[in-house]
Amino acid sequence: MSLAVTSTGDTYMPLLESELLRWVGSGDSLLELACLDALFPPGKLLRPVLCVESAKAVGGTTDQVLAFAAGIECLHVASLVHDDIVDQDPVRRGRASTAEQYGLSEALVAGDGLSMAGIAALLSGGPAEHVLHAARITVEALRHMCQGLMRETQIRGDLTCSVPTVLNIMQAKTAALTGAACQAGAILAGATPQQHQALRQYGEQLGMAFQIRDDLLPYIAEDQVTGKTATSDVANLQPTLPVLLAHEAADEADRNRLSALFRGGTDPVTAHRDILAVLTRTGALAKAARMASSCAEQARAELTGLPDSPQLAELATAAADRQR
Amino acid sequence: MSLAVTSTGDTYMPLLESELLRWVGSGDSLLELACLDALFPPGKLLRPVLCVESAKAVGGTTDQVLAFAAGIECLHVASLVHDDIVDQDPVRRGRASTAEQYGLSEALVAGDGLSMAGIAALLSGGPAEHVLHAARITVEALRHMCQGLMRETQIRGDLTCSVPTVLNIMQAKTAALTGAACQAGAILAGATPQQHQALRQYGEQLGMAFQIRDDLLPYIAEDQVTGKTATSDVANLQPTLPVLLAHEAADEADRNRLSALFRGGTDPVTAHRDILAVLTRTGALAKAARMASSCAEQARAELTGLPDSPQLAELATAAADRQR
Repeated sequence: MSLAVTSTGDTYMPLLESELLRWVGSGDSLLELACLDALFPPGKLLRPVLCVESAKAVGGTTDQVLAFAAGIECLHVASLVHDDIVDQDPVRRGRASTAEQYGLSEALVAGDGLSMAGIAALLSGGPAEHVLHAARITVEALRHMCQGLMRETQIRGDLTCSVPTVLNIMQAKTAALTGAACQAGAILAGATPQQHQALRQYGEQLGMAFQIRDDLLPYIAEDQVTGKTATSDVANLQPTLPVLLAHEAADEADRNRLSALFRGGTDPVTAHRDILAVLTRTGALAKAARMASSCAEQARAELTGLPDSPQLAELATAAADRQR
Repeated sequence: MSLAVTSTGDTYMPLLESELLRWVGSGDSLLELACLDALFPPGKLLRPVLCVESAKAVGGTTDQVLAFAAGIECLHVASLVHDDIVDQDPVRRGRASTAEQYGLSEALVAGDGLSMAGIAALLSGGPAEHVLHAARITVEALRHMCQGLMRETQIRGDLTCSVPTVLNIMQAKTAALTGAACQAGAILAGATPQQHQALRQYGEQLGMAFQIRDDLLPYIAEDQVTGKTATSDVANLQPTLPVLLAHEAADEADRNRLSALFRGGTDPVTAHRDILAVLTRTGALAKAARMASSCAEQARAELTGLPDSPQLAELATAAADRQR
C-alpha cells in the first residue's frame, strides 16, 4: 500500500489484525462470516494506524490503544458496507462488496453488527474516564459521518451544489473520523488537551487530503488499482470535488456538457470518459491535487508543537500522494 | 397503550420525550428529520420505561438514567428502521415506515444516525465506571440483536427450524435488549450485582413474553390496532412461534397445508387466512399465549428479592396480555 505503513507499522500490524479478529469472532455464524469477509483482507488500516501513531507520538504504547484502534476500523468498515448498499457498488477492495456477496438485507445487518462490535471494542479497556472521553469523541465523529452520507445523497445530480458544500461533506464523511482516531489515541495515552486537540486537527487535515485524493483516483488510476469501480460516482450522478472545480472553471460548452452528463441517461463508461476530458481541459485535476497537498501540509504543520513523529508526518504526505 | 405505563410513567413520560428530542436534534437536516419521523410520535417506550423503573426499584431516580433510557429507545428504533428495510414493510406504528417515506438509502443512513445518537446518549453522563458498565452490557445486547436478525433471515421458509431456534432468536432479538435496559438502569442507580442480575433476568423474561405475544398479534388483532401489516411475517415466509407450534401439533393434512404456504407463491392475505385456520385448529394460539403468560410469571418471580415495585410487576403482566 502507498500509505507507507510498512515503515511505521511493521511491528503492530499483525497485532491489529488479531485484535480485529477478536472483536468479530471466528466466523461461526452468518453474521460473523459476513463481518470477517468485510474486514479481511484488510484495507489500508489508515484509521487504526493514525490512532496508534498518535498515542505513540505523545509517549503512549500500542497496547494502550489497540482495542480502540480495532474498534475504529470496525466502525469504518461498517460504514463502507452500508455505503456500498447506498451506492449499489458491487466491488470493494477489488472483491465483491458485502451486499453483492451476501444480499442487501444480510449486508445491512452485517454492517450493524460490525458497528456494534466496533463500539464494544472502543469501550473495552483502559481508565474509565479516558475511555469515555475517547469514545464520546469517536461517536460524535460517526454522527457527523451519517450527516455527511445523507447530505451526499441529497446533492446527487446537482452541479450547482458548490465546492464548499462538497468540502463540508468530506469533512463530515471522512475527516471527522480520521481526526477522532488521532485525538482518541492521544487521549487514551494521557495526552494534554493541547496535544490531543493538535492531533485532532492533524487528523482532520490528513483526512481531507485523503478524501480529496480519493475523489481524484477514478480519473488517475485503473480499476484494478483502486479496487473499486471507477465509474461508481458517475453512475450515481455524484458530483465530486474535481467535477465541481471543473464546472466552476469550464467555458459554456464544457459546462453544458457536464450538465447534460449529470442529468443522467448516459452510459457510465462514456460519461466517465467525457468527464475526464473536461477535467483535464479545465485543469481541475491539477487543482484538486494541489488542494490535497495543501491539506497535507497543514496536517504536518499541526505536528510542530508535538514530540517528533516521522510516522505521522509521513502518513500526511502519503495521504495526498496515494495512487490507490 | 396496553402496557399500563399511564399508571407508572405519568411523571417522566414528557421528560423522556424531551430527552429523545435532545439527542436527535430539531430536524434541521434531512438526517434529523428522518430520525425525528422514526421516533415521533413515540411507540410504547417499553425499553426506556423498563430502564427508569429498574433504577427506581433499587432506590435510584429518573434523572440518573434519563439520557441512558432515551439512548436505548434511539437504538431500538434504529433497529426497527433497518428491520423495515429487511422485511420491506411499508407500515410501522400505523404510518409509512422510514424506508417507504424517505427511500431505502435514506432510511439506512437514518438508522445509522439514530443508532449513533443512541450510543452518544448512553455515554453522556453519570459516574464513568457505572456508565461504562451499563453501556457495555447494552452494546452486548445490541450485538445479540444483530445475531438474531441475521438468523431470522436464514430460517425464512423453513418450517423445520424448530421451536427452540425461534425462541433463541427471540431471546437475541428482543429479550437481550429488554434485559439490558433493566440491568443498565439498575447499575446506573448503584444497584448491587445481585439486584442488577435479577433485574436483567426479569427484563429478559418480560422481553420473551412481549415478543411471544408480538408474534401472536397478527392472528388476534386488527391491522389498525397493531400499527403494522398483519401479513408481513407471512409475506416474508417468516416462520413464527405460533406457526411452528402448529406445525408440531398438526395432522398430516394441516402440516402439508402449512408447508405449501411456506413455499411461497400464495397471496399473503389468503395465506394468512389459511394459516389462522390451522393455528386455531391445532390450539397453537392458546399454547403460545400460555407460554407468554409463563414468561411473565417468571419475570415477576425475579422481583421477589428486590424492594417492592408494583410498576415492574404490572409491566410484566401487561407484556403478556397486550392487544397491540
